[in-house]
Amino acid sequence: MNLSAIVNNIRRKKSFLCVGLDPDITLMPKSLLELADPIFEFNKAIIDATHDLCVAYKPNLAFYEKLGPSGWLSLEKTIKYISDEHLIIADAKRSDIFNSAKMYADTFFDYLNCHGVTISPYMGFDSVDPFLKKDKWAILLIATSNPSASSIQNISTNINIPLYLELVKQVNSWSNEHSIMFVVGATRLSEMSEIRKISPNHFFLVPGVGAQGGSLKDVFQHGSNMNCGLLVNISRSIIYAGSDVNFKDKMRATTLTIQCEMESLLKDGKILI
Amino acid sequence: MNLSAIVNNIRRKKSFLCVGLDPDITLMPKSLLELADPIFEFNKAIIDATHDLCVAYKPNLAFYEKLGPSGWLSLEKTIKYISDEHLIIADAKRSDIFNSAKMYADTFFDYLNCHGVTISPYMGFDSVDPFLKKDKWAILLIATSNPSASSIQNISTNINIPLYLELVKQVNSWSNEHSIMFVVGATRLSEMSEIRKISPNHFFLVPGVGAQGGSLKDVFQHGSNMNCGLLVNISRSIIYAGSDVNFKDKMRATTLTIQCEMESLLKDGKILI
Repeated sequence: MNLSAIVNNIRRKKSFLCVGLDPDITLMPKSLLELADPIFEFNKAIIDATHDLCVAYKPNLAFYEKLGPSGWLSLEKTIKYISDEHLIIADAKRSDIFNSAKMYADTFFDYLNCHGVTISPYMGFDSVDPFLKKDKWAILLIATSNPSASSIQNISTNINIPLYLELVKQVNSWSNEHSIMFVVGATRLSEMSEIRKISPNHFFLVPGVGAQGGSLKDVFQHGSNMNCGLLVNISRSIIYAGSDVNFKDKMRATTLTIQCEMESLLKDGKILI
Repeated sequence: MNLSAIVNNIRRKKSFLCVGLDPDITLMPKSLLELADPIFEFNKAIIDATHDLCVAYKPNLAFYEKLGPSGWLSLEKTIKYISDEHLIIADAKRSDIFNSAKMYADTFFDYLNCHGVTISPYMGFDSVDPFLKKDKWAILLIATSNPSASSIQNISTNINIPLYLELVKQVNSWSNEHSIMFVVGATRLSEMSEIRKISPNHFFLVPGVGAQGGSLKDVFQHGSNMNCGLLVNISRSIIYAGSDVNFKDKMRATTLTIQCEMESLLKDGKILI
């Protein structure tokens, strides 16, 4: 899925929401546990309740690998269930030398049919290069949302810019906004503004709204561009909105509230007229 | 497996070899492809041919994930086949926020029964903390062996030390040599010396000898300490030493040559008397 298709989907759906598919057996509705594949059934329920309100889905591999081979099967079924109009991001945070990186790219792009993969940039260009493919997305961790991220990511370099910004500069020499996105946490607003200055056209994948405390309005103010330029990921607030028999309705109600706020922001920003 | 058990194994076996279990269907002996689980059979052959000559095994997850659920099953069987006296390192290069990092730690330490996991340090302390468990190993990417690694890892900070060294300093405040190792490539000898100065007691996991051009003697000279302090990983030179019916003999002969060189270095370094 290329950049203009993503932008078209955002305009058509009036939403820049990415829903995190992070199924946790201990948190999902108990009624699902009796079914043959609770992980897939939970994801199916999420997708049914949200598909017209979001433009992307992001399964976090940690939740599937924990279950061994059956987790992989549930992930495969989930990805097949998602319609072609959604961007699918494997939140895998991989990073390896060239031949191994190529295997990961083959796994996520060809075997699992994902459009994007999150990647740690610390190993440099040749660890990212295999992911730079037409209509696919290398989504680089730059300013992450976790509490201790800045202790490393904001280390000041000898030309007095923080490390994350030096990384963005290097990455901008590897490829452009048509194959690379950046992970920028909603808890890292000043970093988001700085990155936007030197990468006006890149999409940002933004975790950290909701359970981690970031605000949608602040993110839009600091990170949006004329194409929106944002995919805001929300996982827990949506997928665990309810735990009883009405959990799908509660997921949908929460998602609808978020989509309405996004529509309003897109209108304020003149991205929707 | 704790630090003194690793050191005892090195002294007893006169070897600091870690064998990389990177099974590639396109490179392994054709005779194995007729068996029910060629990946496991290839790994079994490697383990049979090398177990008394090495102290660790390192499966690279990229090779298994590429095969989907069957790859995971082959990996599980392989790990069960390795004896208790070997350190088992999941070369997974993971990195995630706290709750996901904990899931990865559970997956590799508890579900798969590995002793160590390679981790990218870019997300900071809270992404590594779940891996800091008794007798388990968080093995942090610091100076990797790939060609473009230094473009990022050697960025100079505002106190004029390179990034990789600033990372080692931070990591040394998170925990000590009893739960953390560093990945330092055999192609990064000057970095290896610098890291050894500020981390005299840590073990280094060293890729890059053999196919990538690094030399065992140079690594020993730049990286060893009084406990050896090195686990040198070799994959391709050993596991693809032969491709015909005698492939196991060729694997063993290559491994024996490496073990002999290691024994000689350990004697020269007065680690073996």
